Amino acid sequence: MTVYSAPIQDMRFVLDQVIGFDQEIATLPGYEESTPDLVDAVLEEAGKLAGEVLAPLNQVGDRQGSVLENGVVRTPDGFREAYQQFVEAGWNALPFDPDYGGQGLPYALSTAVTEMWNAANTSFALCPLLTQGAIEAVGSHGTQVLKDLYLGKLVSGEWTGTMNLTEPQAGSDVGALRTKAVKDGDHYKITGTKIFITWGEHDCAENIIHLVLARLPDAPPGTKGISLFLVPKVLVNPDGSLGPGNDVKCASLEHKLGIHASPTCVMSFGDEGGAIGYLIGEENNGMACMFTMMNSARINVGLMGLSTAERAWQQALDYAKQRVQSADIAGGREPVTIIQHPDVRRMLMTMKSQTEAMRALLYYIGGAMDTSRRHPDAEVRERAQGVVDLLTPVVKAWCTDTGCEITSIGIQVHGGMGFVEETGAAQHFRDARIHPIYEGTNGIQANDLLGRKLLRDGGANAKAFIAGMRELDNVLASANGQHLPVIRTTLIQAIGELDAATDWLLETGPKDIHLAASGAAHYLNLFGTVTAGWLMAKAALAADAGSREGNGDARFYEAKVTTARFFADQFLTRAAALRRIVTDGGETVMAMTEDQF
Amino acid sequence: MTVYSAPIQDMRFVLDQVIGFDQEIATLPGYEESTPDLVDAVLEEAGKLAGEVLAPLNQVGDRQGSVLENGVVRTPDGFREAYQQFVEAGWNALPFDPDYGGQGLPYALSTAVTEMWNAANTSFALCPLLTQGAIEAVGSHGTQVLKDLYLGKLVSGEWTGTMNLTEPQAGSDVGALRTKAVKDGDHYKITGTKIFITWGEHDCAENIIHLVLARLPDAPPGTKGISLFLVPKVLVNPDGSLGPGNDVKCASLEHKLGIHASPTCVMSFGDEGGAIGYLIGEENNGMACMFTMMNSARINVGLMGLSTAERAWQQALDYAKQRVQSADIAGGREPVTIIQHPDVRRMLMTMKSQTEAMRALLYYIGGAMDTSRRHPDAEVRERAQGVVDLLTPVVKAWCTDTGCEITSIGIQVHGGMGFVEETGAAQHFRDARIHPIYEGTNGIQANDLLGRKLLRDGGANAKAFIAGMRELDNVLASANGQHLPVIRTTLIQAIGELDAATDWLLETGPKDIHLAASGAAHYLNLFGTVTAGWLMAKAALAADAGSREGNGDARFYEAKVTTARFFADQFLTRAAALRRIVTDGGETVMAMTEDQF
Repeated sequence: MTVYSAPIQDMRFVLDQVIGFDQEIATLPGYEESTPDLVDAVLEEAGKLAGEVLAPLNQVGDRQGSVLENGVVRTPDGFREAYQQFVEAGWNALPFDPDYGGQGLPYALSTAVTEMWNAANTSFALCPLLTQGAIEAVGSHGTQVLKDLYLGKLVSGEWTGTMNLTEPQAGSDVGALRTKAVKDGDHYKITGTKIFITWGEHDCAENIIHLVLARLPDAPPGTKGISLFLVPKVLVNPDGSLGPGNDVKCASLEHKLGIHASPTCVMSFGDEGGAIGYLIGEENNGMACMFTMMNSARINVGLMGLSTAERAWQQALDYAKQRVQSADIAGGREPVTIIQHPDVRRMLMTMKSQTEAMRALLYYIGGAMDTSRRHPDAEVRERAQGVVDLLTPVVKAWCTDTGCEITSIGIQVHGGMGFVEETGAAQHFRDARIHPIYEGTNGIQANDLLGRKLLRDGGANAKAFIAGMRELDNVLASANGQHLPVIRTTLIQAIGELDAATDWLLETGPKDIHLAASGAAHYLNLFGTVTAGWLMAKAALAADAGSREGNGDARFYEAKVTTARFFADQFLTRAAALRRIVTDGGETVMAMTEDQF
Repeated sequence: MTVYSAPIQDMRFVLDQVIGFDQEIATLPGYEESTPDLVDAVLEEAGKLAGEVLAPLNQVGDRQGSVLENGVVRTPDGFREAYQQFVEAGWNALPFDPDYGGQGLPYALSTAVTEMWNAANTSFALCPLLTQGAIEAVGSHGTQVLKDLYLGKLVSGEWTGTMNLTEPQAGSDVGALRTKAVKDGDHYKITGTKIFITWGEHDCAENIIHLVLARLPDAPPGTKGISLFLVPKVLVNPDGSLGPGNDVKCASLEHKLGIHASPTCVMSFGDEGGAIGYLIGEENNGMACMFTMMNSARINVGLMGLSTAERAWQQALDYAKQRVQSADIAGGREPVTIIQHPDVRRMLMTMKSQTEAMRALLYYIGGAMDTSRRHPDAEVRERAQGVVDLLTPVVKAWCTDTGCEITSIGIQVHGGMGFVEETGAAQHFRDARIHPIYEGTNGIQANDLLGRKLLRDGGANAKAFIAGMRELDNVLASANGQHLPVIRTTLIQAIGELDAATDWLLETGPKDIHLAASGAAHYLNLFGTVTAGWLMAKAALAADAGSREGNGDARFYEAKVTTARFFADQFLTRAAALRRIVTDGGETVMAMTEDQF
């Protein structure tokens, strides 16, 4: 059995010293209760549930998987009880509106807590993730009646939510969907089949609220003709009590590479005449509602990249400290623990530095979400929203690609034992592989970054963000010691490369979108690497200050500076190559005709 | 069911026009029979067996796996019959000594054929791979009696071979093994447990010849005290007939991430008093014998990286040509096949160019093996052996890391379907993940490249090889057209970076081996990238000449030049970053103390 221990010291470091939680987030209107003591208590308690309850179910969940029997999906042993415990302790409600029973805590804090659920048991954590999407869609676009009837139970987690987008012919191209909705009095009748529905059916909650994209009979083609509907598994009476079952069923479960405990359902709506659904938002405006769900889901999938990496890292580190094999390469007869071998150490430092970089990125975007919603100054809110919009595809794709790499390194550190399933390292590798795919493949994210986030506003938002990163150079200029000056030089070079790639795309995109899009994935990689490197530099500055102030654990701070330097040396230095591939490497991407393949 | 079609045109291109098979290999003494017609016939027939018999068993093998029941290992449905067909058609004997029933065909050709077995069914292909190791160990180090008794049946494949190195405490550190061998008349009694024994027990052949590393009672500690023994599953009478069973059994099978059809055994020797074994080579000289098996096995594992990538590539290409999703990014209403989307195209070009680069590298080392064994000029033989020695770790690690990346991209091209096991893309991803681990982890390969292959001779061999690559610049200097001049510039820069990294390691290694070894994996990556890029440049030159001569299929040649240019643009351009990481990026790798992790 593999274990997980929430890295609370690391989390607090990022919250307190990298993203300025106490000064900038806990001071936002409505967040006044997020005192350091409360944050401590929340992280402590969440860490216990994650480590003691959810983590031990991770491997059993993988082995048993969720199974469909006679129309009922049974989750693996222990999942029902764990979910009850999760709901009863109020964890599902953490970031949501107090008017509907939420605790109204900052997203930055919720991000740290959600990291724990994901790291402990990524299959389990998918369930509340989808519920969050439903809460945001209903909360932002639902009528008061729907809010009153559904939000309370969704916020508490007594009911769970799903997102029903994909159909066999409509994957990335949501606009191609064919599920039908026909108006029938105060509701609609929904008919169609959806695939890849995460936690579409299960035995952990008494009701499941499906958010379903469908098309009205007279709807225009493509994305402009889709509407969003709330389709409960069990109908809800006006007084909130449960009524009869709706015309919705799980037709089958997918047999997947990973996340076996998370039931991935084929959902069938309206086999017996039409499932009852309620419109969310305006007719034919489903895409806007969908993006409300989707954007937070994308960030949350990026968070899964971090989380699975953290779990894999803990396991690999533990193994590397215990496994004794071969003498030191510098000589000696006695075998040593493998953490002492340079190439193993390189792998561990890679895992550590990338994981910390992802954490900084995710908590940073969590803080930006809070600012965008709560800051009293509209201009500040807008600027923060700009950061969230810009970084959403970056966080989703960069953290999930990186998460896959880290879980693969996790296997490698284990040697042959890593390939044996009992060890558990392989599960993280399998589980992580879905992250670059769902909620929009990483290719879709790259196109989103290029098209919607860069070209649409002529680069204004991106250039402003890059200029903001460049300002750190002034702070770094006065830093000294062994590492910070090197981090400074490397960072400023890397920012320059990002800027150059951005300019090239802004110039090329309008002229030749195929050429620009050929480099979009590399550009996203460059953007993620540089932004993460910038945050690691901020972390290094904070740690350097902390260690000089005798502020706590000097060895901890020293390790933070060293890790940031490693990230600069081994990852920020790739910026020039990535820029070159973006600006000079695309000529042959589309050059071959299809018959030449 | 996924299909496989041997890429014979691509294979012939590399054999004929990149490594000069007809001029340089088929003309070696003993290879005169390898006429173009024979090569055609061999590739055609092998392609049929691979595509029609082995490939269809790949997915069923994954699902059923090999199972242990009452001491008997049953391979999945169809494997026994396929193996019989493989042996009866003489495929096992392809590259081996005609004195023992081999066909004596060149390794370069055998490499192409073995690529097919691996691509069709990597679990199946492991069986003859291990047999090859046994043949080479017995052939190179066995007594005449052992050769006469065992080689014929091993060469034909009627009996299969295994390599028994690993023990729980002795993985990478082979010298830590504890299996005992005690002399007992003309043979030895072997006692001990070996783990991770590929095809250690199965139902495809009537006998299994285990090559077992063990320690004599008075042996010195470490690698200088291990000896190699031949331990048959069934004892062999002096007349070659089968006698009683030996004291060897399979205690259990591992439950693995991939290659489920390949039985990975815990082997127990001597539970009933001692398994009868025969010494191979001298007492306490087992390491040298092991390296005879190991070096060819390492190249063959590199070949698996290529092969699994080729299989994943074929599947992804097929899907990308058929799957219709989303309109062209440049506009239009109708959805198109996804091969027309730039980011999908980028992924496909990555798969195609890397796979072709690996093929060039592997056939090149196959040709060097032939030259090293057959060339009449001792100096040429020695130089070729130098190339084989130098490139063995490079081929093993670079091709297996790249193979893992390619199989991951194969999943990504499939989107959500890639994560569903029925699609088959995920199997390649799982199967490929063992390659960077076995026959010496890729970290071990990096240390081998740095220590044994670079530092030991003061860089003489590596520097000569790099200088040889640089000579291509003279040929490229007279090339023109859209792509070749760019390839030239990029290649010469990349060779310069490799040279600089090499010099730095030669200077640093003797002073600070920890610092040098911290960059060893990146150096290996650089070495593989540049060598592959050099061979892709050779391929581009040949294709360019071919297309201008109207020599065959002009569109095919044009695609080869385009693909080489893509490789230069997107991979060779990373050389500078890799060099920088090697020479400037290692300072913090070993900087943290263990308690700081």
